[in-house]
Amino acid sequence: MSPVFTPPAQPQAGCDLCTNPGGLLLWSEGDWRAVRVEDAAHPAFYRVICNRHVREFSDLSGVQRSRCMDLVCAIEQVLIAQLNPTKINLAAFGNMVPHLHWHVMARFDWDDHFPNPIWGARTREPAQPAAERLAVGLDVLDAAVLQALANA
Amino acid sequence: MSPVFTPPAQPQAGCDLCTNPGGLLLWSEGDWRAVRVEDAAHPAFYRVICNRHVREFSDLSGVQRSRCMDLVCAIEQVLIAQLNPTKINLAAFGNMVPHLHWHVMARFDWDDHFPNPIWGARTREPAQPAAERLAVGLDVLDAAVLQALANA
Repeated sequence: MSPVFTPPAQPQAGCDLCTNPGGLLLWSEGDWRAVRVEDAAHPAFYRVICNRHVREFSDLSGVQRSRCMDLVCAIEQVLIAQLNPTKINLAAFGNMVPHLHWHVMARFDWDDHFPNPIWGARTREPAQPAAERLAVGLDVLDAAVLQALANA
Repeated sequence: MSPVFTPPAQPQAGCDLCTNPGGLLLWSEGDWRAVRVEDAAHPAFYRVICNRHVREFSDLSGVQRSRCMDLVCAIEQVLIAQLNPTKINLAAFGNMVPHLHWHVMARFDWDDHFPNPIWGARTREPAQPAAERLAVGLDVLDAAVLQALANA
Protein backbone atom coordinates (compact mmCIF):
# COMPACT_ATOMS: atom_id res chain seq x y z
CA MET A 1 0.00 0.00 0.00
CA SER A 2 1.55 3.30 -1.05
CA PRO A 3 1.76 6.05 1.56
CA VAL A 4 -0.16 9.26 0.96
CA PHE A 5 1.59 12.62 1.25
CA THR A 6 0.24 14.71 4.12
CA PRO A 7 1.37 18.35 4.26
CA PRO A 8 2.78 19.44 7.64
CA ALA A 9 0.43 20.92 10.22
CA GLN A 10 2.44 24.15 10.10
CA PRO A 11 3.59 24.55 6.50
CA GLN A 12 5.93 27.33 5.40
CA ALA A 13 4.16 29.49 2.82
CA GLY A 14 5.52 28.86 -0.65
CA CYS A 15 7.72 25.89 0.36
CA ASP A 16 7.69 23.21 -2.31
CA LEU A 17 8.49 20.43 0.18
CA CYS A 18 5.67 21.53 2.48
CA THR A 19 3.31 21.23 -0.51
CA ASN A 20 4.60 18.29 -2.54
CA PRO A 21 6.17 14.92 -1.69
CA GLY A 22 9.40 15.88 -3.52
CA GLY A 23 9.58 12.66 -5.55
CA LEU A 24 7.90 9.29 -5.76
CA LEU A 25 6.72 8.76 -2.17
CA LEU A 26 7.83 5.35 -0.86
CA TRP A 27 7.63 5.62 2.89
CA SER A 28 6.54 8.09 5.57
CA GLU A 29 6.63 7.77 9.34
CA GLY A 30 6.66 10.46 11.99
CA ASP A 31 9.06 13.26 11.14
CA TRP A 32 10.47 11.68 7.98
CA ARG A 33 9.58 10.48 4.55
CA ALA A 34 11.58 8.89 1.75
CA VAL A 35 11.06 9.38 -1.95
CA ARG A 36 12.74 8.19 -5.12
CA VAL A 37 13.76 10.92 -7.52
CA GLU A 38 12.73 10.16 -11.09
CA ASP A 39 16.01 11.04 -12.81
CA ALA A 40 16.69 9.04 -15.99
CA ALA A 41 20.45 9.67 -15.88
CA HIS A 42 20.75 8.80 -12.16
CA PRO A 43 17.93 6.39 -11.44
CA ALA A 44 19.22 5.10 -8.07
CA PHE A 45 18.51 8.43 -6.41
CA TYR A 46 16.48 8.76 -3.21
CA ARG A 47 15.72 11.58 -0.78
CA VAL A 48 15.07 11.57 2.96
CA ILE A 49 12.86 14.59 3.63
CA CYS A 50 11.71 16.09 6.91
CA ASN A 51 7.92 16.01 7.29
CA ARG A 52 8.09 19.29 9.22
CA HIS A 53 9.46 22.55 7.85
CA VAL A 54 13.00 22.47 9.22
CA ARG A 55 15.59 24.68 7.59
CA GLU A 56 19.00 23.44 8.67
CA PHE A 57 20.32 20.07 9.86
CA SER A 58 21.46 21.67 13.11
CA ASP A 59 17.89 22.80 13.81
CA LEU A 60 17.29 19.16 14.77
CA SER A 61 18.11 17.72 18.20
CA GLY A 62 20.84 15.10 18.45
CA VAL A 63 18.23 12.35 18.66
CA GLN A 64 16.44 13.67 15.57
CA ARG A 65 19.72 13.95 13.66
CA SER A 66 20.58 10.35 14.52
CA ARG A 67 17.20 9.17 13.31
CA CYS A 68 17.62 11.16 10.08
CA MET A 69 21.08 9.75 9.38
CA ASP A 70 19.97 6.22 10.29
CA LEU A 71 17.42 6.52 7.49
CA VAL A 72 20.02 7.96 5.08
CA CYS A 73 22.32 5.10 6.02
CA ALA A 74 19.64 2.46 5.57
CA ILE A 75 19.11 3.64 1.99
CA GLU A 76 22.86 3.87 1.38
CA GLN A 77 23.32 0.26 2.52
CA VAL A 78 20.59 -0.98 0.19
CA LEU A 79 22.16 0.85 -2.74
CA ILE A 80 25.56 -0.69 -1.96
CA ALA A 81 24.18 -4.20 -1.45
CA GLN A 82 21.93 -4.20 -4.49
CA LEU A 83 23.95 -2.20 -7.01
CA ASN A 84 27.63 -2.30 -6.01
CA PRO A 85 28.02 1.35 -7.05
CA THR A 86 31.36 3.07 -7.57
CA LYS A 87 30.44 5.50 -4.76
CA ILE A 88 27.56 6.76 -2.70
CA ASN A 89 26.92 10.50 -2.76
CA LEU A 90 25.14 12.27 0.11
CA ALA A 91 24.17 15.93 0.17
CA ALA A 92 21.90 18.41 1.92
CA PHE A 93 21.88 21.78 0.16
CA GLY A 94 18.43 23.39 0.18
CA ASN A 95 19.54 26.54 -1.62
CA MET A 96 16.44 26.42 -3.82
CA VAL A 97 14.08 24.82 -1.28
CA PRO A 98 15.33 25.49 2.28
CA HIS A 99 13.41 22.58 3.80
CA LEU A 100 15.70 19.85 5.11
CA HIS A 101 16.17 17.03 2.60
CA TRP A 102 19.03 14.63 2.06
CA HIS A 103 19.99 13.39 -1.37
CA VAL A 104 21.20 9.77 -1.31
CA MET A 105 22.38 8.38 -4.60
CA ALA A 106 24.39 5.58 -6.11
CA ARG A 107 27.04 6.78 -8.53
CA PHE A 108 28.78 4.72 -11.20
CA ASP A 109 31.98 5.29 -13.10
CA TRP A 110 29.94 5.06 -16.30
CA ASP A 111 27.27 7.61 -15.37
CA ASP A 112 26.97 10.86 -17.28
CA HIS A 113 28.54 13.09 -14.57
CA PHE A 114 31.05 10.80 -12.87
CA PRO A 115 33.36 11.71 -11.13
CA ASN A 116 31.64 15.08 -10.79
CA PRO A 117 28.68 15.54 -8.48
CA ILE A 118 25.46 15.33 -10.52
CA TRP A 119 25.14 19.10 -10.08
CA GLY A 120 28.45 19.57 -11.89
CA ALA A 121 29.54 19.28 -15.51
CA ARG A 122 28.47 16.31 -17.59
CA THR A 123 31.43 14.12 -18.48
CA ARG A 124 30.04 11.68 -21.06
CA GLU A 125 27.13 10.57 -23.20
CA PRO A 126 26.20 7.10 -21.88
CA ALA A 127 25.75 4.40 -24.52
CA GLN A 128 22.50 3.06 -23.03
CA PRO A 129 19.84 4.21 -20.57
CA ALA A 130 21.20 4.22 -17.02
CA ALA A 131 18.32 2.20 -15.53
CA GLU A 132 19.16 -0.70 -17.88
CA ARG A 133 22.67 -0.87 -16.46
CA LEU A 134 21.59 -1.29 -12.85
CA ALA A 135 21.97 -4.79 -11.40
CA VAL A 136 18.30 -4.81 -10.36
CA GLY A 137 15.16 -3.06 -11.53
CA LEU A 138 13.84 0.02 -9.77
CA ASP A 139 10.86 -1.94 -8.47
CA VAL A 140 13.22 -4.37 -6.70
CA LEU A 141 15.33 -1.48 -5.43
CA ASP A 142 12.30 0.41 -4.12
CA ALA A 143 11.07 -2.71 -2.32
CA ALA A 144 14.48 -3.23 -0.68
CA VAL A 145 14.63 0.44 0.36
CA LEU A 146 11.14 0.23 1.80
CA GLN A 147 12.04 -2.86 3.81
CA ALA A 148 15.24 -1.28 5.12
CA LEU A 149 13.37 1.87 6.19
CA ALA A 150 10.69 -0.17 7.93
CA ASN A 151 13.46 -1.87 9.95
CA ALA A 152 15.55 1.26 10.59
CA MET B 1 49.16 25.39 19.02
CA SER B 2 48.36 24.01 15.57
CA PRO B 3 47.77 20.27 15.27
CA VAL B 4 50.14 18.23 13.15
CA PHE B 5 48.78 15.90 10.49
CA THR B 6 49.53 12.24 11.25
CA PRO B 7 48.84 9.74 8.47
CA PRO B 8 46.70 6.75 9.50
CA ALA B 9 48.43 3.62 10.78
CA GLN B 10 46.92 1.68 7.86
CA PRO B 11 46.84 4.09 4.92
CA GLN B 12 45.26 3.20 1.60
CA ALA B 13 47.90 3.31 -1.12
CA GLY B 14 47.47 6.38 -3.31
CA CYS B 15 44.75 7.96 -1.15
CA ASP B 16 45.18 11.72 -0.99
CA LEU B 17 43.41 12.00 2.38
CA CYS B 18 45.61 9.27 3.88
CA THR B 19 48.63 11.32 2.78
CA ASN B 20 47.63 14.96 3.19
CA PRO B 21 45.50 16.89 5.70
CA GLY B 22 43.03 17.91 2.95
CA GLY B 23 43.02 21.61 3.83
CA LEU B 24 44.29 23.91 6.56
CA LEU B 25 44.37 21.61 9.59
CA LEU B 26 42.54 23.18 12.54
CA TRP B 27 41.75 20.32 14.85
CA SER B 28 42.34 16.57 15.15
CA GLU B 29 41.18 14.15 17.81
CA GLY B 30 40.75 10.39 17.63
CA ASP B 31 39.01 9.33 14.43
CA TRP B 32 38.35 12.83 13.12
CA ARG B 33 40.01 15.99 11.97
CA ALA B 34 38.67 19.32 10.72
CA VAL B 35 40.25 21.52 8.10
CA ARG B 36 39.36 24.79 6.41
CA VAL B 37 39.37 24.70 2.63
CA GLU B 38 41.24 27.63 1.12
CA ASP B 39 38.69 28.62 -1.53
CA ALA B 40 38.68 32.33 -2.38
CA ALA B 41 35.13 32.26 -3.78
CA HIS B 42 33.72 30.28 -0.82
CA PRO B 43 35.93 31.12 2.13
CA ALA B 44 33.63 29.79 4.89
CA PHE B 45 34.25 26.21 3.81
CA TYR B 46 35.35 23.47 6.22
CA ARG B 47 35.73 19.71 6.03
CA VAL B 48 35.32 16.99 8.64
CA ILE B 49 37.61 14.15 7.55
CA CYS B 50 37.98 10.65 8.95
CA ASN B 51 41.47 10.00 10.29
CA ARG B 52 41.17 6.36 9.18
CA HIS B 53 40.63 5.21 5.61
CA VAL B 54 36.86 4.72 5.59
CA ARG B 55 35.09 4.64 2.25
CA GLU B 56 31.39 5.15 2.90
CA PHE B 57 29.41 6.81 5.69
CA SER B 58 27.62 3.52 6.37
CA ASP B 59 30.97 1.82 7.00
CA LEU B 60 30.86 3.61 10.38
CA SER B 61 28.98 2.29 13.41
CA GLY B 62 25.99 4.25 14.66
CA VAL B 63 28.10 5.73 17.47
CA GLN B 64 30.81 6.77 15.00
CA ARG B 65 28.23 8.32 12.66
CA SER B 66 26.76 10.32 15.53
CA ARG B 67 30.18 11.61 16.50
CA CYS B 68 30.90 12.54 12.90
CA MET B 69 27.62 14.43 12.46
CA ASP B 70 28.00 16.12 15.86
CA LEU B 71 31.25 17.59 14.51
CA VAL B 72 29.59 18.59 11.22
CA CYS B 73 26.80 20.19 13.23
CA ALA B 74 29.18 22.04 15.53
CA ILE B 75 30.80 23.69 12.51
CA GLU B 76 27.41 24.40 10.93
CA GLN B 77 26.23 26.16 14.10
CA VAL B 78 29.34 28.35 14.21
CA LEU B 79 28.86 29.34 10.57
CA ILE B 80 25.22 30.25 11.22
CA ALA B 81 25.97 32.18 14.43
CA GLN B 82 28.96 34.07 13.06
CA LEU B 83 27.96 34.68 9.44
CA ASN B 84 24.17 34.50 9.15
CA PRO B 85 24.50 32.72 5.78
CA THR B 86 21.66 32.27 3.31
CA LYS B 87 22.05 28.50 3.68
CA ILE B 88 24.39 25.80 4.93
CA ASN B 89 25.46 23.17 2.41
CA LEU B 90 26.57 19.70 3.53
CA ALA B 91 27.92 16.99 1.25
CA ALA B 92 29.90 13.75 1.25
CA PHE B 93 30.79 12.64 -2.26
CA GLY B 94 34.26 11.10 -2.44
CA ASN B 95 34.06 10.31 -6.15
CA MET B 96 37.61 11.58 -6.64
CA VAL B 97 38.97 10.64 -3.21
CA PRO B 98 36.89 7.79 -1.72
CA HIS B 99 37.96 8.52 1.87
CA LEU B 100 35.10 9.77 4.03
CA HIS B 101 35.02 13.56 4.25
CA TRP B 102 32.14 15.94 4.82
CA HIS B 103 32.03 19.36 3.20
CA VAL B 104 30.44 21.98 5.46
CA MET B 105 30.05 25.42 3.97
CA ALA B 106 28.22 28.68 4.42
CA ARG B 107 26.49 29.86 1.25
CA PHE B 108 25.32 33.37 0.49
CA ASP B 109 22.84 34.71 -2.03
CA TRP B 110 25.65 36.90 -3.40
CA ASP B 111 28.22 34.14 -3.86
CA ASP B 112 29.43 33.19 -7.31
CA HIS B 113 27.45 29.91 -7.56
CA PHE B 114 24.32 30.59 -5.53
CA PRO B 115 21.73 29.00 -5.69
CA ASN B 116 23.71 26.21 -7.36
CA PRO B 117 25.95 23.90 -5.37
CA ILE B 118 29.54 25.11 -5.65
CA TRP B 119 30.18 22.13 -7.95
CA GLY B 120 27.56 23.47 -10.38
CA ALA B 121 27.48 26.36 -12.83
CA ARG B 122 28.73 29.77 -11.79
CA THR B 123 25.89 32.29 -11.62
CA ARG B 124 27.64 35.65 -11.21
CA GLU B 125 30.88 37.59 -11.01
CA PRO B 126 31.01 38.97 -7.45
CA ALA B 127 31.84 42.66 -7.14
CA GLN B 128 34.36 42.18 -4.33
CA PRO B 129 36.35 39.32 -2.80
CA ALA B 130 34.09 36.95 -0.87
CA ALA B 131 36.19 36.98 2.32
CA GLU B 132 35.69 40.75 2.61
CA ARG B 133 31.94 40.29 2.69
CA LEU B 134 31.92 37.91 5.63
CA ALA B 135 30.74 39.36 8.95
CA VAL B 136 33.96 38.21 10.66
CA GLY B 137 37.49 37.45 9.51
CA LEU B 138 38.62 33.90 8.83
CA ASP B 139 40.88 34.00 11.90
CA VAL B 140 37.86 34.73 14.11
CA LEU B 141 35.84 32.07 12.31
CA ASP B 142 38.59 29.47 12.68
CA ALA B 143 38.91 30.23 16.39
CA ALA B 144 35.15 29.83 16.89
CA VAL B 145 35.15 26.55 14.93
CA LEU B 146 38.06 25.26 16.99
CA GLN B 147 36.30 26.11 20.23
CA ALA B 148 33.08 24.46 19.09
CA LEU B 149 34.92 21.28 18.08
CA ALA B 150 36.76 21.17 21.39
CA ASN B 151 33.38 21.25 23.14
CA ALA B 152 31.57 18.85 20.77
